[in-house]
Order: sequence, then structure tokens, then C-alpha cells
Amino acid sequence: MDADRLTPPHPLSYRESLHAFLREDWGTQDWSSASVPDRPAEARIVAKSPLVVAGLEVAREVFRAVDPALEVRLMASDGERAEQGREVMHLSGSSRAILMGERVALNLLQRLSGTATLTRAFVDEVAGTGARILDTRKTTPGLKLLEKYAVRCGGGSNHRLTLGDGLMLKENHIAAAGGIAPAVAIARRVAPSLVRIEVEAETLEQLRECLAIDGVDVVLLDNMSDAQMAEAVGLRNASGRGLLLEASGNMSLERVRSVAGTGVDFISVGALTHSAPAVDIHLRII
Amino acid sequence: MDADRLTPPHPLSYRESLHAFLREDWGTQDWSSASVPDRPAEARIVAKSPLVVAGLEVAREVFRAVDPALEVRLMASDGERAEQGREVMHLSGSSRAILMGERVALNLLQRLSGTATLTRAFVDEVAGTGARILDTRKTTPGLKLLEKYAVRCGGGSNHRLTLGDGLMLKENHIAAAGGIAPAVAIARRVAPSLVRIEVEAETLEQLRECLAIDGVDVVLLDNMSDAQMAEAVGLRNASGRGLLLEASGNMSLERVRSVAGTGVDFISVGALTHSAPAVDIHLRII
Amino acid sequence: MDADRLTPPHPLSYRESLHAFLREDWGTQDWSSASVPDRPAEARIVAKSPLVVAGLEVAREVFRAVDPALEVRLMASDGERAEQGREVMHLSGSSRAILMGERVALNLLQRLSGTATLTRAFVDEVAGTGARILDTRKTTPGLKLLEKYAVRCGGGSNHRLTLGDGLMLKENHIAAAGGIAPAVAIARRVAPSLVRIEVEAETLEQLRECLAIDGVDVVLLDNMSDAQMAEAVGLRNASGRGLLLEASGNMSLERVRSVAGTGVDFISVGALTHSAPAVDIHLRII
Amino acid sequence: MDADRLTPPHPLSYRESLHAFLREDWGTQDWSSASVPDRPAEARIVAKSPLVVAGLEVAREVFRAVDPALEVRLMASDGERAEQGREVMHLSGSSRAILMGERVALNLLQRLSGTATLTRAFVDEVAGTGARILDTRKTTPGLKLLEKYAVRCGGGSNHRLTLGDGLMLKENHIAAAGGIAPAVAIARRVAPSLVRIEVEAETLEQLRECLAIDGVDVVLLDNMSDAQMAEAVGLRNASGRGLLLEASGNMSLERVRSVAGTGVDFISVGALTHSAPAVDIHLRII
Amino acid sequence: MDADRLTPPHPLSYRESLHAFLREDWGTQDWSSASVPDRPAEARIVAKSPLVVAGLEVAREVFRAVDPALEVRLMASDGERAEQGREVMHLSGSSRAILMGERVALNLLQRLSGTATLTRAFVDEVAGTGARILDTRKTTPGLKLLEKYAVRCGGGSNHRLTLGDGLMLKENHIAAAGGIAPAVAIARRVAPSLVRIEVEAETLEQLRECLAIDGVDVVLLDNMSDAQMAEAVGLRNASGRGLLLEASGNMSLERVRSVAGTGVDFISVGALTHSAPAVDIHLRII
Amino acid sequence: MDADRLTPPHPLSYRESLHAFLREDWGTQDWSSASVPDRPAEARIVAKSPLVVAGLEVAREVFRAVDPALEVRLMASDGERAEQGREVMHLSGSSRAILMGERVALNLLQRLSGTATLTRAFVDEVAGTGARILDTRKTTPGLKLLEKYAVRCGGGSNHRLTLGDGLMLKENHIAAAGGIAPAVAIARRVAPSLVRIEVEAETLEQLRECLAIDGVDVVLLDNMSDAQMAEAVGLRNASGRGLLLEASGNMSLERVRSVAGTGVDFISVGALTHSAPAVDIHLRII
Repeated sequence: MDADRLTPPHPLSYRESLHAFLREDWGTQDWSSASVPDRPAEARIVAKSPLVVAGLEVAREVFRAVDPALEVRLMASDGERAEQGREVMHLSGSSRAILMGERVALNLLQRLSGTATLTRAFVDEVAGTGARILDTRKTTPGLKLLEKYAVRCGGGSNHRLTLGDGLMLKENHIAAAGGIAPAVAIARRVAPSLVRIEVEAETLEQLRECLAIDGVDVVLLDNMSDAQMAEAVGLRNASGRGLLLEASGNMSLERVRSVAGTGVDFISVGALTHSAPAVDIHLRII
Repeated sequence: MDADRLTPPHPLSYRESLHAFLREDWGTQDWSSASVPDRPAEARIVAKSPLVVAGLEVAREVFRAVDPALEVRLMASDGERAEQGREVMHLSGSSRAILMGERVALNLLQRLSGTATLTRAFVDEVAGTGARILDTRKTTPGLKLLEKYAVRCGGGSNHRLTLGDGLMLKENHIAAAGGIAPAVAIARRVAPSLVRIEVEAETLEQLRECLAIDGVDVVLLDNMSDAQMAEAVGLRNASGRGLLLEASGNMSLERVRSVAGTGVDFISVGALTHSAPAVDIHLRII
Repeated sequence: MDADRLTPPHPLSYRESLHAFLREDWGTQDWSSASVPDRPAEARIVAKSPLVVAGLEVAREVFRAVDPALEVRLMASDGERAEQGREVMHLSGSSRAILMGERVALNLLQRLSGTATLTRAFVDEVAGTGARILDTRKTTPGLKLLEKYAVRCGGGSNHRLTLGDGLMLKENHIAAAGGIAPAVAIARRVAPSLVRIEVEAETLEQLRECLAIDGVDVVLLDNMSDAQMAEAVGLRNASGRGLLLEASGNMSLERVRSVAGTGVDFISVGALTHSAPAVDIHLRII
Repeated sequence: MDADRLTPPHPLSYRESLHAFLREDWGTQDWSSASVPDRPAEARIVAKSPLVVAGLEVAREVFRAVDPALEVRLMASDGERAEQGREVMHLSGSSRAILMGERVALNLLQRLSGTATLTRAFVDEVAGTGARILDTRKTTPGLKLLEKYAVRCGGGSNHRLTLGDGLMLKENHIAAAGGIAPAVAIARRVAPSLVRIEVEAETLEQLRECLAIDGVDVVLLDNMSDAQMAEAVGLRNASGRGLLLEASGNMSLERVRSVAGTGVDFISVGALTHSAPAVDIHLRII
Repeated sequence: MDADRLTPPHPLSYRESLHAFLREDWGTQDWSSASVPDRPAEARIVAKSPLVVAGLEVAREVFRAVDPALEVRLMASDGERAEQGREVMHLSGSSRAILMGERVALNLLQRLSGTATLTRAFVDEVAGTGARILDTRKTTPGLKLLEKYAVRCGGGSNHRLTLGDGLMLKENHIAAAGGIAPAVAIARRVAPSLVRIEVEAETLEQLRECLAIDGVDVVLLDNMSDAQMAEAVGLRNASGRGLLLEASGNMSLERVRSVAGTGVDFISVGALTHSAPAVDIHLRII
Repeated sequence: MDADRLTPPHPLSYRESLHAFLREDWGTQDWSSASVPDRPAEARIVAKSPLVVAGLEVAREVFRAVDPALEVRLMASDGERAEQGREVMHLSGSSRAILMGERVALNLLQRLSGTATLTRAFVDEVAGTGARILDTRKTTPGLKLLEKYAVRCGGGSNHRLTLGDGLMLKENHIAAAGGIAPAVAIARRVAPSLVRIEVEAETLEQLRECLAIDGVDVVLLDNMSDAQMAEAVGLRNASGRGLLLEASGNMSLERVRSVAGTGVDFISVGALTHSAPAVDIHLRII
């Protein structure tokens, strides 16, 4: 994966959040570190299990916010696989600053690397098929930009980042508009010109409706069996339409490769952001 | 559990965060709901698996922030066990408002109830022993107040909420101060009068040191075996000191009851907040 | 135009800005209104020239922020044409509140209605052709969401609202990536799945390149003559590709109809947001 | 004009706004610049038409907010006239940073220089008379401090910046207080000691009332003819009072010199901030 | 004093500060009130010593922020003298809400009423002379708007509220500009048209300079003796200039009447805001 | 006192407040300093009376916020006694920056040093007894963290910083819970494990109740006579319980030593933060 694919969000997009996270951790004052003298120290941040790294630049911003004089060296790159024991960041400077930034930096690194590691497992599972792994809106409130970036670090792609950069018509919307065709027609007039429209299909009949009209860019195949999805791909291919197909619903590492084998373009996995276990990353003062 | 134990944080403490979460979800504008007419609707929020509820008042604040005219009825109480299929919240009002609040409300409810459910499993496991289940600082950045509340909803207790409301002296602090006694002496002068001091002990020898001096309120037994912890409890009891003991390190549901059997006062479990899987809660428009 | 096309941004997206605008207007304290007694009053907001209204709900939020007890009645709808003398809003309540909200409400209404009025002129000019009028990124800093909405009130469409909901590859990007094909290939992997990719073409040769590769959704025809654009449309139609064409560069009311006649899908007009003159709207206490 | 007259607002007064403007432009993430490698670049910001520059230090803050390592050289000074083709700013550093700051910097420069340019035209028109050109409260919400500065860059003066630094009694206030004398008496007790009081006069009779009482510092002559204003000046001069006169209402470049010829002290022009067209300024990567 | 002179700042000007004050008082959570059941209660806020009330509407906003359902009745008006034992506010509603708002409401009331009470003492002392009592910039950071209002509640006047609504030229400024006349000339061009210019004079010679030039509205007599000030008043009166005189420096209740007797227009007293002792006001649950 | 006891709050905890304080002081723009040329200058900040310094690092942050290029040298340490005439800070750099930061820096230094100076007087008074001087919640809204730090600079200790880091049960709470024992039992379950519980006792009977139950860490002796307090200490000592005693109510410098002589552990003094007079500190440009 080339580094430029992994441009993290600009710090202006999350710096104030980091400050709030630090204040949330400290409360009124960190009495523990106020109880001991400050002195020069070195510290390593180390992976305690194999993982895919995500969030190193974010963690660096945390330490810089605590003390701009801290020297922070990245010993790995976001998106890289780290073996157990691999040092991913090296700090030198005020011991107090290191201790005051430690917990927030680790809490972020552990969660983001957890998402990247799980994403990478899904991506590896579908390697060689044309399918791409997508995330969903089931992100942690307040951390969406960073979690979406962690998905990219794991080799996945983002579905959409907000309701403003992708228009999805679900059952409710379609019922309210009186059918797929009128819903899409309104949506196309409402949405900005560079935003795609996706329609949720619960049956192949609904997919056929989408193929029959203009304006649908992507169809989400909702909770279909592999056989149904394979048939959906066949219908799409036969139609000559450039419409893309996304498989969705209860994806697991066990099942994902057979889903990818149906020929769908995207497979979305809510667990990437709502259930990725935190990976184990430690900070040691040396 | 009586309801007054479960006072949630005051909305002033998190309302601006909820607003930010909604803006984060929507981006510039929710084109999907802008594509369909707004109309009166009813919706149910339902548990899809057995769980302990946490976050209902928080979720209500989400919907109120979207539309103060929405009628939101809580059909359960935080801290209550809900069986699969149990309706926990009922909404009536603008369909657009329901859809615009849905995802953020569910993302919060699923995570907080996940923490409450896991906490409840640990608490049930130690029922009848005197031990209390504590959380740690390994919380999700930005959600700490709410996650700490979810731990209380699950029957657990909070360790400390910030570095300002509890003073913990770890290995690093003790080394820097030149021993437990001098570290505690300084800490006692530094800390506010109503804050307790906890010392991390990696050996029983260190516990003995703590018992020999004034000013230590709690000792954290770090990664000790059950046998060591039982011995620690014996030492403490023999000392006639009111000092409290907290077991820490790699607690699992399998192990926790035998740890509680050693007689420790507290058992802290990082997984409550860093690894609780989100539970499944849905919203259905009816 | 049907009303649901004109869903304004949710007040949570701009309410804090309105508060800041009021504080900016008042400074430390409004000494003028503090010099006279408060009393019940009625006021009309009236168009002083023919215009297309935009921002009425925004203006209502301004007055509500000053005094929730003010009664604010909308006498027109956003997107509606108002003749000279038409009352568009009616206020009753505290005279002091009306005076304290007046200037900010009018400053917003005049600008937003100015943009809607100019947009409507362009939209009317291309009526009957298939071309749609788009806005650009040349918006007033701090007012983008509202100005983009004003464009929709005038019958126009939004191009993209931010750099996050549309990916445009310009000359610089293409040069840096080593050509259109490699730039598009990277962009497609970088961008979320529901975001379209647009490529800027300064020559028909570049359009041909775009037609020859996958992954380009829209081509911007930069500063081309009408003849070139007509040829571009011919090339696109002959290609059988669903790619869309956007005309850009020095659009004026005089020229826009002939541009639309070339068959392009979109015509983008920077002036909608950077040069629309404020229209004249007054508030009169009665 | 000497440079010290042109002290811009302190960056603390607007820096957070600039950050918000950048986030507003980018949305979740700038996918375009994330698609191409970052590399060292040089760029020029150039006037495309004759103009009076305003906002260079503000634009520099924009680029610094994106990347503190960017080298930004001001090639002109605010308040200076720039011919077409004149380079006003020179940038060197990260190409990605330049692209990410470009649009916001230009949107500000174009609007502020537009206001400065129009102001300068009015100021030049009244050169040699004693009249000074003033702005009004009809500013763009959120940009008032910067627009007021742009007026100074164009050689104009500020009327007041907020309702807190000048007290204006209009028709409504006077009616409510029961006449000019009682209104002024109350206002003088309410207002801070260093704030002047201005009274709006629609007739010469009202001006006579103002001249007859203490406490009025400035009289606004509202929509009077040149003949009336000349008479007003005569009355004021004959009175021996130091009271100042401001002409207001429908000022145009065509009319302003004859208004100045009446001997009024100030002429206020709403168009400076509500109708100044954006001037054309470009950024070119070289 | 009539009530309209006492218009407090609009809540939008300080409401966010009140929220911050409450969060500052509570920290993470108010464990005390969470320990007891919530129930309906009544409470009185009572003056424990004679005082001039200031801040009742501000205190009401505090309680409303805690719980909009609390009924808050003002039993006195800002600016009113209250005897010992006088109830100034009556609350009914949730006991928890009353307790959570109590401390912040009292901390504000006690300080603001302290300033109003001290101001009233100075104002009473100079009653019958023409002199008005002014405040200074020596306010409590973060509370300036409210403290300036408290001065008005005590019958005093505000000098200026910020550096933006009054221009004061001190020794440093005059030296840097090369004399009073050039400093005033520049200042007059820099300042908005409705802002007055005050010059600090340490000698009568400097006052004479001010009287000899145009553009000075007020002269501050810095640390002069009563005799010098009387001479200053004589010079001013003899000059026929409308220039106002402000006495400044070490004013005390003992001295202020004799200063007022010199005929100065204003007497500024830093102690009003930097040294007013908090008055004693209690809340009792009944 | 050793310097590490005096760790001030981290700047992230108050930097945004300082920015707000500066904007509050300046208003829209500092016209005075805009009227004179900027030039290199030196300035001294000097104690005008004997005092205990507090807030030097905070004041340095103020000047850095105005101009990061200012050189700021601390000539004393927080907590140090300074004689009259002692220079405590030395500035060199832009004269305009010095003038723009001066007032806010002094307003903070004068108040914080006032609190430190008064605290030191109380602490000196009880020297040699075991009693420690505590502050209360009667702090200035918005300045609590800094005022609590100033108390530490004066040699005092903090009671609690917020309602979240100490649990105090008062008369109201106890009545609502039905007695001390049930109130404490609930509180112990509600509160985090590292937070102490304090009970307010108005009679010795209530103290006896506290000594008879578990879970009370501190008892506040409310408005007792010295004799009662001495008896309370006797009861506590006889009980063999480690419970601490805090004397509270109308403490004065005259009385405090005799209170300390009763053997209480803590003496809390509201005046430290609600009535400390500002000390006199000046800035002189040299």
C-alpha cells in the first residue's frame, strides 16, 4: 500500500478533540505526576501482539499538545504490520509530559489499530477477488474521522463519511416517495452533483427496478444469500449498466470470501468500527 | 439496584458533545431525509438480544436535540435487564427527525449497554463475595463520563473518573521520589484533602511497606496470583489498618470469582470499557 | 419547485454561528435599545424590490435566539418569488428583541435572497435545455452551508459542499500523478465509494483520455468555447459512456443560454456566491 | 496613508474563525490532495485586475494554520494599490498545504480587497473636501472585524464596530422616549463615558432640536437632499456647537462628491460592505 | 433610578460562561446530590447584611440552565437596596437542581452585589455634586460584562467596557507619537467616528495642551491633588471647550467627596471591581 | 516549600480562558495601541507591596498568547515572598504586545497573588500546630483552577476542586436519606472508590454517630466553639478511628491559631478566595 493512500485527516480536523480528550483524562489536575519531580526520560511505545498500526500521527499530536518540546519519533508507519515487540514510537523529553499524554495516546492507538487490524483480516480474506471491504456509519461518536482513517490503514475503503457525501435510499425513503423511480428522481435533484446515489434492495426484483431506471449508482444487497448475490451480479452484468453492487448484513471473517466470490464490488462490515477489540500496545519508560 | 444510585451525568456535561456527534454523522446535510417528505411517524427502539440497558436518557437528549417536539417515552430504565425483543424507547413525531437522530442514538445505546452488560456479568460472577467490580482509565476518548455511568448501570463502581479525583502512585512515581514513604508524604501534601491515595504494589514486600506508613488509602495488587492476593488480604487484616486492596491485571469472567474469593475489596477490569462488544439494538418505524 | 427539495440545513448546523453573529453585532451591550423602555410591538419584513426569498427559517432562528417569546410568522416560503412590497415575515413581541435581532436577520436575508435571485435568473435563462446551474467553492467563509442552500432556493444545484463530498482532479493533481489515468486510479482507491470523481479538461484531447478510462464520473470543460463544448458533447455521446459534462469559466447571464445549447449537463457559475448583490429587504415597526 | 493607521485586528480575534473556515471548505477530508504526492512547491498570488489590497496578513494566517512550515512572503502591503499582474504574496513549501489553504485565502482576499477597492473609489471621489467616508452595520455576518479593517485599508473610517461602541438614537427610540431631549438624557446616563451619541434626524427641525440641547455628539442626516444638507451645515456652523454631521442614504460614486461639497463631516455608504464585488485574485503554482 | 437604566447584558452574551461555571463547580459529577433522592423543594435566597442587589437575572439564568422546570421568582430588582433578612429570590422545584445551582448562583450574586454595594457607597458620597463615579479596566477576567453591569446597578457609570469603545492615550502613547497633538491627530483618524478620545495628563501643562488642540474629548487628571484638580476645572471652564475631566488615582470613600467638590465630571475608582468584598447572601431550603 | 508541590495547572486547562480574557479586554480592537508605532521595548513587572507571588507562569502564557516572540523572564517563583519593589517578571519585545497583554496579566497576577498572600498569613498563623489551611467552593466563577493553585502557592491545601473529587454530606442530604448511617451507605456505593466522604456535623452527637459507623473519612465541624472542637478532637482520638476533623465557619486571622490549638486536622477559610484583596503589582515600560 502506498503511503499517499493513507493521508490522515489534517490535525485542524481533530486537534481540539485531542485537547478535550486530555482534559477529560486529567480532570482538574494530575496529582500523581505533580507529586514527583519532572526529569528527562525516554519511552518506547511497543506492540504487545501482532497488529496493523493506525494512529501514529494522531498520537504524536497528543504528545505535542502536552509538551511541544517532547521529541517524538515514529518508528513505524500507519498501515504497516507490526510484530509483537515492535517499537512503533519513541519519545524523549519531560517525564511528566510523557506520563500526562500516555493514557490518551494509548487509548487512541489501541482502538484505531484494533480497527485497522480487523479490517486487514477482512481485506486479506478477499485478496484476489475484486471485492473491496467497506465500513459503515456504526462508528464511535466523536471518533468517526479517525476510525474511518483506521479502516483505510487496514486496506479497506470508506463507504461514506457522513450523510452529506453519499445518498442512500432505504425502505423507508422509498415507501415515502412511492417507489424507487420517484425516490431516485427526487434524490438526484436534491443531491449535489458529485454525490452518488445508492439504493437498498431487499429482493432481486428491487434490483431489477434499479437497473431499469437512470440515476442509481450503487445498489446495496441487504441480507441476501450468496446465491442471491451471485444472481444479482449476473443481472447487473447482463444489463450493461455500470451500476455497482454492495453486499451488506452479518459479514464475518468466515463468510466474507464466499461473498466476495459472488462478484459483488463492495462488502460492508459494521464490525470494523463497532466491534473491533482494542489491541494491546504499551508505553515503557526506559 | 435503586434508581438513585444511577443518576446519570447532568446533560450540561455532555449536551455539546451530542450536538457534535450529530453534526459528525450528518456532515453538511442529510440528503437522504431531504429527499422524502416529512410526516408523522412512530418508532420503537428494541433490544435484539438480552442486555443491560444504559444510556436511555442520553439517547432521549439526542432526539430532543434534533427536534424538541418529538415525543420520547422511556420504556425501560437504565440498569434494567432487557430480554430480546423488549422495547426500551418509543418515539412519535416527525419521521425526518427520527431518522436524523437514529444512528447517533443507537451508536451510543449499543456501546453503553454493551459496557453495562459486560459489567453486569462480572458483578454477577462475584455476587455474595464482598468484592466490587471497578473500571479503569482505558475508556473511549470523548465518552468517558458516559462509559463510567454505564459501568454503574451494570452494577459496577467507578475507580476514579479523572486524574484529579484519585491519586495513584505507580512504579515510576515511587522510583522518582525515592521510595514509597517519601512519595506518599509528598502526595499527601499535594493532593486535595478529600482525595484518596492508592499505591501500586508489585510484591507483597511493597504492600508491607504501605501497611507500615501513614497516608496510603488503597493498595493496587498488580498482576498477582490468587495465592499472593490471599496472602495480601491476610497481611492487611492482621495489620488492623483500614487500607483497601484492589486486584488488577488480566481479569476475565472465568477467573474473577476466584479472585474475589481471596477477600480483596476491589477488582478492576479494563475490558469493561475497552473491549465490551456493542450489543444489538434496533430502531423500527412502525 | 416542490417544498421538500428545499430542506434547509438543520439549525444545529448553524445555530452557534447565529449566536456569534448576534454577539458580533452587539459588542458588549446594545446601549441604544437599553436607552428606551421595552414594549409590545409588531413589525413587518418587506421586500423592497422583486426577489427570490431565501433564509426565512434562518432569520426566524435569529429572532428566536434573541427572544424565544417573540412570535414569528413566515409570510412566504424560501424559493418563492416575492414582488416589491411583499411582506415575507411578521413579528410580534418585545420591541427591544425585534431591534436587537433586526440587523443580523436582515444582513442574512439580503445576502441569501441575493444569491437565490441571481441563481433564479440563470436557471430561468436555461429553462427547457437539460442543463443545470451549479455553484462553486467561491462562497463567503462562514456562510457556505447557507449560501449553498440559497442556490437551491433559486432553483440551482450544488456542485459539492466540501472537498469531502466530491473529488476534483485539476491540472496540478494530474501533473503530479503523471497523467489522467494514474491520477484517477489513485483517486478511486482513496475516495469513499459514494463520492464521484471529476476531472478538469482544458482540451478535447483530455476529454478523450477521460472517455478512454474507467472511473471518471464527470469532466469539467474549463474555459472552452461553445463550439468546443458542443464537440465535447458529441464525443461523449458517441462514446456510449454515462460520463457527465460540466461547463465552467466566465459564465454570464448573456452567454449562459448558448452554453446550455451545447448539450452540457451542468454549468457552474462562481458569481452566484461571490458576486450576487444584496437585495433590498426592510423591517418596519408598525 | 501611513502603515500604523492600518493595524489589522489581532489574530486572536479571528484565528478560530479561520480554522472554522478551513474545516468548512474541507469537510471530512480533502480527497483531491490526498490523491497526489506531497512535494515542495512555489506559488504566487497575483492581482488579475487593478485593486486596493486588503487581508494579506489574514491570508498569511490561513496558510500558517494549514502548515506552520510554509514560507509566506507578503509582496505588498494592505492598503496599497496593486496593478493587474502584481504579485501580492509568495508561498513556498508543501504543495498539499498550498492547495488546502488556497480557496479560503482567496475567498477572503477577494472579498476584503473588493471592499477596500470600492472604499478607495469613494475616498478618492471626495478628496480635498473635509468629508470622511464611513461604513455601516450592513456587514457580512461573521466577517465584520475584517470588513471594517478593509474599509480602513481603502482609506475610509469606521462608523462604529458594534452597538457597544457608539450609541445611535433612531426614530423608534426617540418616539419611545417621548422626544429627542429625554432620549438623549437617558442615553447619556446609560452609555459609557467614552461613547458618543448620535441622533438620526429626518428633518432640519430635528437637527435644530439637537443643536438646542446638550449631549448630542453627531447628527445623522437621513436621506436629505444636497440642499437640505447644505442648510444643515449652515445651521450647525452658526450654532457654534462642535456637533458633527453625517450624511446617509443611497450614496453612489456619482453623487458622493456633491454631498461632500455640502460641508458634512461624514458620509456613510452601506454598499462598501454589502455590495462590493469580489475582485479577481489568483494563485498559481509555479 | 429607573429600571430601564439597568438593562443587564443579554443572556446570549454570558450564557455559555454560566454553563462553564457550572461544569467547573461540578467536575465530573455531583456525587453528593446523586446520593440522595430528588424531591420537590422550596428555597429562599436571602441577604445576610444590608446590600445593593446585582445579578438576580443572571442567577435566574444559572438555575434555568440546571433545570428549566425550576420556578424562579425574583423578589427584588437589581439596583435595589436590600436590608438584612430580605428575601431576594424564591425557588421551587427539584431539590437536586436547587443544590446543583446554588453555589454558582451565590458566588455570582455575592460578588456582583458586593461591587454594586461599594459603588453605591461612592455614589452616595458624591450626591449633589455633578460628579459621576466610573469604573476602570481592573475587572475580574471573565466577568467584565457582569461587573460593569453591577457598577451600573450601584448607580455608577461605565468608563469604557473594552479598548474598542474608548480611546485612551497614556504617557507611553504620547511619547511614542512625539507629543499630544500628533498622538491625538493619529488617534482621531484611527478610531471609529463614535468613539471618544481621552488623554492622560500628569500636569496642568498637559491639560493646557489638550485645551489648545482639537479632538480631545476627555482629559484624565492622573494622581493630582484636589487643588490641582480645582485649577484644572478652572482652566477648562475658562477655555469655553466642552472637554470633560476625569479624576483618577487612589480614590477612597473618605476622599471622594472633596474630589467631587473640585468640579470634575468623573471620578474613576478601581476598587469597585478589584477590591469590593463579597457580600453575604445565603440560600435556605425550607 | 519545594517547587514540585507547586505544579500549576497544565496550560491546556486554562489557555482558552486566557484567550477569552484578552478578547474581553480588547473588544473589537485596541485603538490606543493602534495609534502609535510598534517598537522594541523592555518592561518590568514589580511588586508595590510585600506579597506572596502566584500566577507568574499564567501571566507568561498571557503574553505568549499576545505575541510568541516576546521574551518573558520569570524573576521570581510562584509561592515566593516578594518584598516591595521586587521585580517578578521581565519582558522584552514589541511595545504593542506588552501593552496589549498588560492589563489581563496584571488583573490575574494581582488577584492570584492576593489569594496566595492571604493564605500565607493564615498558614503562618497556625505554624507549628498540625492543622492545615483549606479553601472552599466560594471561588470566582471561571477562575477556580487558578485560585485553587494560588491557595497552594500560599502554603494552603485544597479541600476539593469540584463536587466530583470529594463527597460532602450536609444537613439536607442527611435529612433526605433518613440519617447519617443510611446517607453514608448510599454515598459509599455511589462515589468512586478513590473519593473520600465527609459529613457535616453541627453537634457533637452527630460526630459520635459518624465515629460509630464505617465509611466516613472526614467530619466537618460546622460553626463550633473552640471548646466544642477540642471535645470533638478528644472523642475522635479516644475512638481509635483514623477519621479526620475539619473546622469550618467564620475563620479570621485573629481566631485561627486558637482553633488550630484544638487539634483539628483542617481549617477551611472561605475568605481565601472570596475576599482576598488584590495586591498591588505594576508594569513599567523602561
